[in-house]
This record gives sequence, C-alpha cells and structure tokens, in this order.
Amino acid sequence: MLIAEPKSMHFAEPLPLQSGASVRDYTLAYETYGRLNADRSNAVLVCHALNASHHVAGIYADKPDNVGWWDTMIGPGKPVDTDRFFVIGVNNLGSCFGSTGPMHANPDTGRIYGSDFPVVTVEDWVDAQARLLDGLGIERLAAVMGGSLGGMQALSWTLRYPQRVRHAITVATAPNLNAENIAFNEVARRAITTDPDFHGGHFYEHNAVPKRGLRIARMIGHITYLSDDVMNEKFGRQLREGLELKYSTQDIEFQIESYLRYQGDKFSEYFDANTYLLITRALDYFDPAKPHEGNLTKALAAATAKFLVVSFTTDWRFSPARSREIVKALLDNHRDVSYAEIAAPHGHDAFLLEDARYLSVVRSYFERIAKEPA
Amino acid sequence: MLIAEPKSMHFAEPLPLQSGASVRDYTLAYETYGRLNADRSNAVLVCHALNASHHVAGIYADKPDNVGWWDTMIGPGKPVDTDRFFVIGVNNLGSCFGSTGPMHANPDTGRIYGSDFPVVTVEDWVDAQARLLDGLGIERLAAVMGGSLGGMQALSWTLRYPQRVRHAITVATAPNLNAENIAFNEVARRAITTDPDFHGGHFYEHNAVPKRGLRIARMIGHITYLSDDVMNEKFGRQLREGLELKYSTQDIEFQIESYLRYQGDKFSEYFDANTYLLITRALDYFDPAKPHEGNLTKALAAATAKFLVVSFTTDWRFSPARSREIVKALLDNHRDVSYAEIAAPHGHDAFLLEDARYLSVVRSYFERIAKEPA
Repeated sequence: MLIAEPKSMHFAEPLPLQSGASVRDYTLAYETYGRLNADRSNAVLVCHALNASHHVAGIYADKPDNVGWWDTMIGPGKPVDTDRFFVIGVNNLGSCFGSTGPMHANPDTGRIYGSDFPVVTVEDWVDAQARLLDGLGIERLAAVMGGSLGGMQALSWTLRYPQRVRHAITVATAPNLNAENIAFNEVARRAITTDPDFHGGHFYEHNAVPKRGLRIARMIGHITYLSDDVMNEKFGRQLREGLELKYSTQDIEFQIESYLRYQGDKFSEYFDANTYLLITRALDYFDPAKPHEGNLTKALAAATAKFLVVSFTTDWRFSPARSREIVKALLDNHRDVSYAEIAAPHGHDAFLLEDARYLSVVRSYFERIAKEPA
Repeated sequence: MLIAEPKSMHFAEPLPLQSGASVRDYTLAYETYGRLNADRSNAVLVCHALNASHHVAGIYADKPDNVGWWDTMIGPGKPVDTDRFFVIGVNNLGSCFGSTGPMHANPDTGRIYGSDFPVVTVEDWVDAQARLLDGLGIERLAAVMGGSLGGMQALSWTLRYPQRVRHAITVATAPNLNAENIAFNEVARRAITTDPDFHGGHFYEHNAVPKRGLRIARMIGHITYLSDDVMNEKFGRQLREGLELKYSTQDIEFQIESYLRYQGDKFSEYFDANTYLLITRALDYFDPAKPHEGNLTKALAAATAKFLVVSFTTDWRFSPARSREIVKALLDNHRDVSYAEIAAPHGHDAFLLEDARYLSVVRSYFERIAKEPA
C-alpha cells in the first residue's frame, strides 16, 4: 500500500479572487505520489469535490484506516499509475482539511475567519492550484482530473491555463448546475444558517457547532448522490427492527432512515459548516459559458487540452446529458475528445466506486498519455 | 363560482387505529358540493394529500380568494360536475385545517395533544371517512378519488370497503413509497424534530413554532414536486437581481433560492409541525401488499371497483411506473381499469394543475359513471 505524507505550502503573496476580495498568508495542504520525472512532464493534478481533501490515495503510516478518497483510481499499478505518473492531490482554499479556511485566523484581524472567509470560486481554486504547481516547479501538467466539482476544476484549468494542461479528465460533472441542483444546495445551506448554533457563521467563538444543520445538509446530499434504483436495492422498504411497525413519527422505522441519520451524524462531527456554504456556492457559481451569453461552444474555444469525459447512466445530479454538452462544445471546436457513458447503477456516487469498465476506460486513457510525447 | 360552506361532524365513539391506539371525541371538517340524489347514488368522496384540506372546490362567501385546491377539477360543469354529482371533501384526522389533530386537546388529559396525537394511517383515515359517510346517509360511493397520498386513500377504500365503492380514481400515486421518497420524508421530519423550537412536539405550550424546520421541510417538498425541466424553464440559473453576482453564501443570488425561501416561509406560517410528521408517516407506512409478502396482485384481489389510474410522465416522486404497478395488479385480477399516462412537464404538481388532456380524461370517465346504472 502507498504510504502518503501530508505536506503544505505557504503563500505570502495575496491571491486575488473573482469577487474582488483577496486572501493573503494562506497555506495549501497537499500530497504527492510517485516521482516527478527528469523533464517534469508526468505530473497529474487531482481536484477534489465537496467533502474530500488532498488525501487522494494510499494510507498514512500512523493511520492505516485512513485510505485516500480515490485510492481505487490512483496508486502503483492502478489506472492512474503512480509508478509512471507524479500525482498531486491538493486541499482547496476554504476547505477544512488543512488548507487555509474559515476555521483559521484572518491575518488582518487575528480573529477566526468564520463566515468572513471570502467567497471562493472554481476559478480561484484553479489559480491557487497553479501557484502550488509553480512552487513545485511544474510548468505543464500531463493531466488534470476530477469528478463532480473536481471535474469543474479540471474543465476550468483548460480555460484559464490552456498551455499548462495536456489532458483533462472530467468525470460525472457538468458545465454548470441546473436549477434543481442549486435548489438542493440552497436547502442544505438554509438548514445550516438557520441552525441557532450557527451564530451567523461565528460559532467557533461560541464553542458551538451547527450540527443539526450539517446533519440535514448531509442527508440531502446523500439522497442525491445515490440513484433511486440503488436505494431500493440496498434499503427498499426494509424495517430496521423485525417485521412489525412501531407506529412512531420520531423513532426509526426503516433502514434508510437509520442509514441517513448515521451519515448525517458522522458528517457533522468533522465537516466545517462555513466550508459547506463556501463549497456549495462554488458549485452554484461555476458557469464558464456565462461571459459568452450561455454559449458553451464559444466558452470552450479557449481549451486546447485533449479530453476524456466520463458520465454514469444513473447519475441524476450530474446526468450524462450534461457531460454530453461538454463533449459537444469541444467537438464544435474540433478538439480531441473521448467520451465514455458508463452503465452503472450507483448514481453520482459511481465516480468514487470500483467499477471495472470505468476504471479500465481511465486506465487506457492514461496509457495513451504515457505513450505520447510530452 | 361555487360558494363552499365548511361543516363538521362530531364522533363520540372511539375510532380504533391500526397502531392499536384509538381516538375518541373527534371531529371531522368537511364540505359538500352539489346535491345528493334521491337514491343516494351520486356521491363522490375526494381525499386530500399532504398539505390540503376539505376545501376542495369553490370559494367561501366571505373569503373570495380562498379557492378550493382542486377547483379546476370539481364544480358546476367541470370534469367532476357538481350539477350531477354530490361531492364530499373531508379533512383527515391529524391534519390542521379543522379536523381533530395535534393542536387540539386530548380528552383524556385536557392537554394539547402535540406529538402525543396517535399515529394515523391511510387505513385509519379511510375508516374515519366511512363513518362520515354513515353520518351523511351514504352507503355506496359513485366514486372515491384522490391524487398522491389522496390516491392511496382511494386505493385503500377499494380494499377496506369494496362494496361501498363503484369507481376509484387514483392520480399520481403509488402502491407504496420507495426508499428515496421515505428518505426525503425523513430529512423533512428531522429538520422539524431537531429544531429547538419543536420542544419534543409540545411547542404549543412554549408559545413556539418550529418554523425553521417547517421551512426546510417545505423547501425539500417543493423541489420534489417539480420536474427538473420545469425548474429549468421557470428559474434556470436566473439571478434575482441584475446580472452580477454578489459573491455571498447567505444572500439570495438565484431566483430559485428566492422562490424556495418564499414557499418555505409561507408554509411555516400556517402548517402544523406535528401534522407534517403524521402525514409523512402515513405516506411511509402505506403498503397494502405488505400482508401479502409484497404481492400487489394478491393484495388488490379484494378490490371490486372499476378504476381510472392517471400518472404524469415527468413525475419522479410518483412515477408512471408506480401507477402501472397498480394497473398490472388490477388486470391480473381481471378488473375493469382505464389508465392514462399524461405527457405533462410539471412533475408531481401536475395533478393539481390545469391540463386539458388530463381534465378531459377525468371528464370522460365521470360521464361514463353518470351514465352507468348505480
């Protein structure tokens, strides 16, 4: 098993943000796997989604249970083979796993940022990641890749730094969120911000955590990550205890309730509420076609990278139709695009799961990258 | 316009409930439209869904803005023509629009029921409705009808009182909820019960209302009642103000956020939190096939009524596939079934909306009922 070591890089120079604000004196937590080759041409940047981190692959020497979130995909001999590629995982600005975020002190005031942490966008994250690569001495990526919100970052990389990306792999993503997705994000945010323990986002100084809101947010998330079919198969109408109903509105009756409550509880123990708000907003805001009157073909004209686009048939949050919009816009621009629509039962979650067809598509694509002249 | 008059009927005899508990000294609020004919053969019972009431059609003389929730369907010259049929709307036990519910005093203790109001099921409601019909001197219904949870009641009528129902019209319903629907209900319930203002369901005596929870519950409901398409068409990614982003996690940016917050606020002003719990539980519990090892064909063998089953193509909460399960089970039993699958863009909400094809299907069906010998 790959042994991962968390690292961090400090940045003194302010990062200008899309909102007009900026962040200074920030740190990015990251990990690397494999070795950068002599001509520095084998680097792969992995971008994370809502609740993940820089811990993409392997385990920690002292925490063998803490397996990276994309360990099925990345490692020695895996589809993204760390014997060939130098893989970088980075925790995004505003997240809560080591990089500077709402739980840290604002250098201007000495006070914990809380909800004063500036709103960050996908584009801001990409800019911060570019500075990390500068620090690592990497001018050009063999590939940038990510699923869901991570796929949005990969897409954004090809637009902001076209010369620095040879390949982009976007999995289970979309060129923007539709109204329904924004709506689910908004309900989750309202659950958090209306929790009395939120204290306007400055709950740290009240020694409080808006756990009720975080639980609800996570429960909503979980429902939307799974497909209807997989929920019916895993839980259906199974009762938690025996075969008889308890006739109670507040006790758990069905297994699905028990599962959701457990997921919500677990999440509320470790995830930062302000980070949840920031990251869902970054999802809402992402829309590269906006400056082009909604014309995605025009928006993607700037991208010169080659693409692998992957979607999953039962993903109703980031449906194949949304991935096909990206494919179409790239083809309109005569770009080199491979597209795989994987028949998988697991909904949006499929991008994190072990699925032989999915993993072999990515493996083949990375074999192609490895053979190509840099 | 039809002028409606709310009425009520008191029942001293205890109603035994499925849970083993019972309710005594309860009142049902109801309305009737049209006239019962001489042989009492033209009565139509309308069952309501989650947040509706006995006010099915028409307006109140002193409240001309308060239009019945199925006024497009029911009234003089409408698909369910009150010049021909005697239509009864009834508010269910445990609801919050006039019938006995959690906001009323428990006759055993003198204390407001709150969360002590017994859990009621679809079958309990049907039993209560049957007693109301007894009180009105109606032995047999020309038809029982309802949409969503109302459709479940109509279906249950044909199983509990097969001799009392000539026709059942079930719209946008299902033979039971699947895991995803139970999951959405559970998130809504958790939002309510974890609101500090819920006080274990006895918030009345604290002069509190768990509005935060009710708002979240309603927002979730609204998302699931609408189709993805109609949300994109009505709201899409439209900003509420101008074209520029505010870059805020808590302010409203998108129209869809504004719409959901408004719907949530409005709902939290009038709907009872304990009723929300009770009614979503009744939805979860309904499962006539359960005593038959999940075999719906066996379950529906008891039904002798003729059926009209209606579903809507974009309804992802009560999808056409679920209505087709009912149709199949009835056909397996050689029952008389008409089925209409309406291509409508509005999702589950379609059952409440004006749609020419939908209304004309119901109209034709009721013309057939009117012509049939009773």
